[in-house]
Amino acid sequence: MKKMLFVYGLLIFAFLIYVFQYMSEDNKQGDPAGMGLRGEISERYVMITFQSGLEYWKSVLKGFEDAADAMNVSIEYRGATNYDIHEQITVLEQAIAKKPAGIALSAMNSHALTAVINRAVDEGIPVVLFDAGAPNSKAHSLLATNNYNAGATAAKQMSELIGGQGEVAVITLPGQQNHIERTQGFTETMKESYPDIEVVDTVDGKGRIEVSRQQTEELLGKHPNLAGIFITEATGGVGVGEVVKARMEANKSRVQIISFDTNKGTLDMIQDGTISASIAQGTWNMGYWSLQYLFHLHHELTTPAPSATDVVSPLPVLVDTGINVVNKQNVEQYYAK
Amino acid sequence: MKKMLFVYGLLIFAFLIYVFQYMSEDNKQGDPAGMGLRGEISERYVMITFQSGLEYWKSVLKGFEDAADAMNVSIEYRGATNYDIHEQITVLEQAIAKKPAGIALSAMNSHALTAVINRAVDEGIPVVLFDAGAPNSKAHSLLATNNYNAGATAAKQMSELIGGQGEVAVITLPGQQNHIERTQGFTETMKESYPDIEVVDTVDGKGRIEVSRQQTEELLGKHPNLAGIFITEATGGVGVGEVVKARMEANKSRVQIISFDTNKGTLDMIQDGTISASIAQGTWNMGYWSLQYLFHLHHELTTPAPSATDVVSPLPVLVDTGINVVNKQNVEQYYAK
Repeated sequence: MKKMLFVYGLLIFAFLIYVFQYMSEDNKQGDPAGMGLRGEISERYVMITFQSGLEYWKSVLKGFEDAADAMNVSIEYRGATNYDIHEQITVLEQAIAKKPAGIALSAMNSHALTAVINRAVDEGIPVVLFDAGAPNSKAHSLLATNNYNAGATAAKQMSELIGGQGEVAVITLPGQQNHIERTQGFTETMKESYPDIEVVDTVDGKGRIEVSRQQTEELLGKHPNLAGIFITEATGGVGVGEVVKARMEANKSRVQIISFDTNKGTLDMIQDGTISASIAQGTWNMGYWSLQYLFHLHHELTTPAPSATDVVSPLPVLVDTGINVVNKQNVEQYYAK
Repeated sequence: MKKMLFVYGLLIFAFLIYVFQYMSEDNKQGDPAGMGLRGEISERYVMITFQSGLEYWKSVLKGFEDAADAMNVSIEYRGATNYDIHEQITVLEQAIAKKPAGIALSAMNSHALTAVINRAVDEGIPVVLFDAGAPNSKAHSLLATNNYNAGATAAKQMSELIGGQGEVAVITLPGQQNHIERTQGFTETMKESYPDIEVVDTVDGKGRIEVSRQQTEELLGKHPNLAGIFITEATGGVGVGEVVKARMEANKSRVQIISFDTNKGTLDMIQDGTISASIAQGTWNMGYWSLQYLFHLHHELTTPAPSATDVVSPLPVLVDTGINVVNKQNVEQYYAK
């Protein structure tokens, strides 16, 4: 009998330890301070782009994923496959219908998405913008390159490349806010700081390799003394490169190209000397901090709360994710990334 | 005997459950993805200001504390008690000597702290700047009001208050980067957008109530038609308010005041009509995201790693924490904060 009692005693003791341990764990979960920033795997955050196949978005998505891993939440990547505003509106509407925990969006057009963005915010879905903004929308923040400064940096580089004088042109996307600002930064800096350089033309490359190739041919026909081209995006940049490379092989005068971003095609052309320089953006930062911001809005961790936006913004309103100039000297490091 | 065996079996079963549970927890701890962003309470992050008694820093410190609570790390608040650059250099040097996990610093002077900041970064201590920057230092990021835009907003407000014409003056801190930018934003916007308003004088209020009071008296003596004063910081703003209040009580012509920030003295003077408007800053954001950035640098959670700063910045380089105009209509909300 005594042995039995001893064994029962042990059993009860083990059970008590188990209960005690269970309760102390429960306490721990009840104390958010000790737990760190951690969500639920059922929380789903959506990242939406346009031209979703672009290599450019990979690093942004990597940042978005890294933040999701760090904070134990789920993500989904959606995008309009084409450079088509109607398609992006549809993708955004579909995302809203599924009531995600938050939406990070790169706005293809600075005006056309405003109504749908505002609807998401009014329905209580946090929205932050990255890469390209929609200044009049209710989105809580924009994480992007300071595109005006990036354009100004491109102007400074161009001046060094062409010896401070000559005719230059810009190939861009005239409807997209970030490209408008790159173009302004470039042309205004030329006017203010490099009076012997003239921006003779600004044309639409539609973000496509064939269109940008054709625009380059036309520019060179119209302006036979053209010394340089600033192309504000990478896909078209390779098209410009192809034309200039063919000219170089035919021993015609050198046209300096400054491009944007660091996809493989651009890096290859920097390495072989076709493209003189490109502007690299802080893409990982855009994705990582977009998810952080959405997480903080969803969990109402901001001061003031997301609802009090009439007083002070609950989040930093504008985040400059940084740039760097890539050229033949440092191009190797960008392959390594 | 059978009963005994049954009880032993139960005991072994309970023990196995215990072991199994222990192991599964161990696995969970070994998987950083599931754990959220969580540091150690022994990690100590330091926030350093100048004029450390200022009410203004309270909300920044609250953001710093909230982030520390959320991520389970420790903080310390240090500051030069006076508006004295030598004292702030000493405070920063003392902080570095203790090898903290990171330092968030508001730089009283945009040049004088550069060497000490760089020493901290070279020794592997992450440094981010908030509120006031040091543009040529190796600090990883600046989280601050876009002070130029804030000054431009103040100019627009002033124009509305004085009916688009007249003489105005600025009282500021001429050695501190954020105040230089507020003054530039104000004066350049007046020149470009409001040609009938003249900025007749810009003087040093030393961030002190008596000095700003005296400067206001002198300005009003020198410029009897002065219609408005933009004071770029709150302590002196109350001094300006005292002079203007006395004038109003003596039935002299009204001088419109636009101040900066939202300490109690300023809010009281907005409520009683002495100060017409003030520019509120996103101070909580400065503190909260400064600690987030330091945490990410300390734990090497950025891409690229903090050491690869020659390629792309590991963090967003510049964060605009936002502003809002406070006036009689919305001043109540700022008391509530």
